[in-house]
Amino acid sequence: MTVMFERVALIGLGLIGSSLSHVMRRERLAHHIAGHARSAATLEKAGELGLADSLHSTAAGAVTNADLVILCVPVGALGAVAQEIGAMLKPGAIVTDVGSVKAAVIRDVAPHMPPGVHFIPGHPIAGTEQSGPASGFAELFQNRWCILTPLPDSDPLAVRTLEDFWRACGSNVEMMSAEHHDLVLAITSHLPHLIAYNTVATAADLEKVTNSEVIKYSAGGFRDFTRIAASDPVMWRDVFLNNRDAVLEMLGRFSEDLSALQRAIRWGDGDSLYALFDRARSIRKSIIAAGQETPLPNFGRNQKPEG
Amino acid sequence: MTVMFERVALIGLGLIGSSLSHVMRRERLAHHIAGHARSAATLEKAGELGLADSLHSTAAGAVTNADLVILCVPVGALGAVAQEIGAMLKPGAIVTDVGSVKAAVIRDVAPHMPPGVHFIPGHPIAGTEQSGPASGFAELFQNRWCILTPLPDSDPLAVRTLEDFWRACGSNVEMMSAEHHDLVLAITSHLPHLIAYNTVATAADLEKVTNSEVIKYSAGGFRDFTRIAASDPVMWRDVFLNNRDAVLEMLGRFSEDLSALQRAIRWGDGDSLYALFDRARSIRKSIIAAGQETPLPNFGRNQKPEG
Repeated sequence: MTVMFERVALIGLGLIGSSLSHVMRRERLAHHIAGHARSAATLEKAGELGLADSLHSTAAGAVTNADLVILCVPVGALGAVAQEIGAMLKPGAIVTDVGSVKAAVIRDVAPHMPPGVHFIPGHPIAGTEQSGPASGFAELFQNRWCILTPLPDSDPLAVRTLEDFWRACGSNVEMMSAEHHDLVLAITSHLPHLIAYNTVATAADLEKVTNSEVIKYSAGGFRDFTRIAASDPVMWRDVFLNNRDAVLEMLGRFSEDLSALQRAIRWGDGDSLYALFDRARSIRKSIIAAGQETPLPNFGRNQKPEG
Repeated sequence: MTVMFERVALIGLGLIGSSLSHVMRRERLAHHIAGHARSAATLEKAGELGLADSLHSTAAGAVTNADLVILCVPVGALGAVAQEIGAMLKPGAIVTDVGSVKAAVIRDVAPHMPPGVHFIPGHPIAGTEQSGPASGFAELFQNRWCILTPLPDSDPLAVRTLEDFWRACGSNVEMMSAEHHDLVLAITSHLPHLIAYNTVATAADLEKVTNSEVIKYSAGGFRDFTRIAASDPVMWRDVFLNNRDAVLEMLGRFSEDLSALQRAIRWGDGDSLYALFDRARSIRKSIIAAGQETPLPNFGRNQKPEG
């Protein structure tokens, strides 16, 4: 891959921003990476890790002269960042983001984009439960999907360039409307995180079972839930505040289905339980066949003795 | 470890039974392993894999002369198995099980145990989402907890012998009452499985999001839920039918907590969301510190490029 961009600005140097730095270095996608983080501690760590060729204490400073600007801050912070950088953006620059919701991001960011700048919202479906500048790695996007939600008037050439960029980072790329993205992610990501957070909270608040028991015996299934419930709380607060309607719709269906399951347990309806449980296996097989999951049991973590 | 038992009978040769066979071989815990499975296909596979020194088409045949009998069939089948083997058990034999519920197992099994036989219920908190005779491996129990729920009149020496057996298999051993076990497992295992099954079913039934989209974009969190929802449906049907009260109690609390979370989303209460999400991280740290989980991000599965 030849260098795609003279100058790329990473606004936010957490898990996604730092992973983008690593993969851009490995694939030589930029001559110069300009980085910005709000906190002094993150900037210092980013300096130690060599995440950027220049580090900037303001987002406006980092985007100056950038050909590609990638906004990697929590969704709730995007409006303010867009307002700050709007006037400094180079004509012809591509601005994208990595937020887990898209309609709210367009609402907050688009009004600040000057004419001649290409704002193309995006969302790499990739992550871990860790956060911060030291959590990134170049393989994060490998074989994961990245969804772009171009606006009706987006320049096709700019969209194509951004698509090529994500493919160069290892991703598969798909296009859809912001509204459909928000509905899809509400079920594939937002609802599971909400349920996981809720399960962990319910367990922590029990009187008859101690937290120490929950921790000791978590290998029965609970520990899986704690992984996604360990994700960045600011990022997830912003997701739920900014994808409210889709999340509430999925939550309504989830609760309705759960009531039916609860009733089957109460009345000892084994046939209904079996039918529902049996169906679930095929979905996992399809996810493995689609290359989105390891086929190893227990995600591969039990293959060797632990501890 | 010297040979602990002259003859051990494994009744059921699925994930747990076959894993016990592997670890008993590795640690030389039995001179002779007698195996029984109900289906001819499982027996044949067990023969190919060398899981037992003798294979038996009846449970009664397998337990004859056994010093230790381990019942590794779904909880709903235990009563019938106990009835079948009762009269064939050797005086002084230890009979245990590996079921995920304990009060119902005692209810179903204890009445069939003749005087002089030591029935000590047990539950290794270990497993994967896979099942069948080929799914077992010797390390399954390594560093996992095994809970024993001796009866008030259990012989302390027999309990001690069974405890030593599980430690020799790599487990840590804890004692508690059957009732407390069922409450602890309701939150650490049964509720998470129920929630995971329900989430997968809700996703599969959507009209506005296709199953193909759910599969493609599952890396956002959903795929984690599909792992435990891929577990053996017969085993799990039996768990819910036999731990009804404790599961319904946990489910009631979960739904109550979820309603509060739903309300916080509807009313845009970011502070409550943040406070709840922030709390959850510490639980995972404790599980990792307790040696019950890998510290690697994404369970270690994202450390190398996939696909």
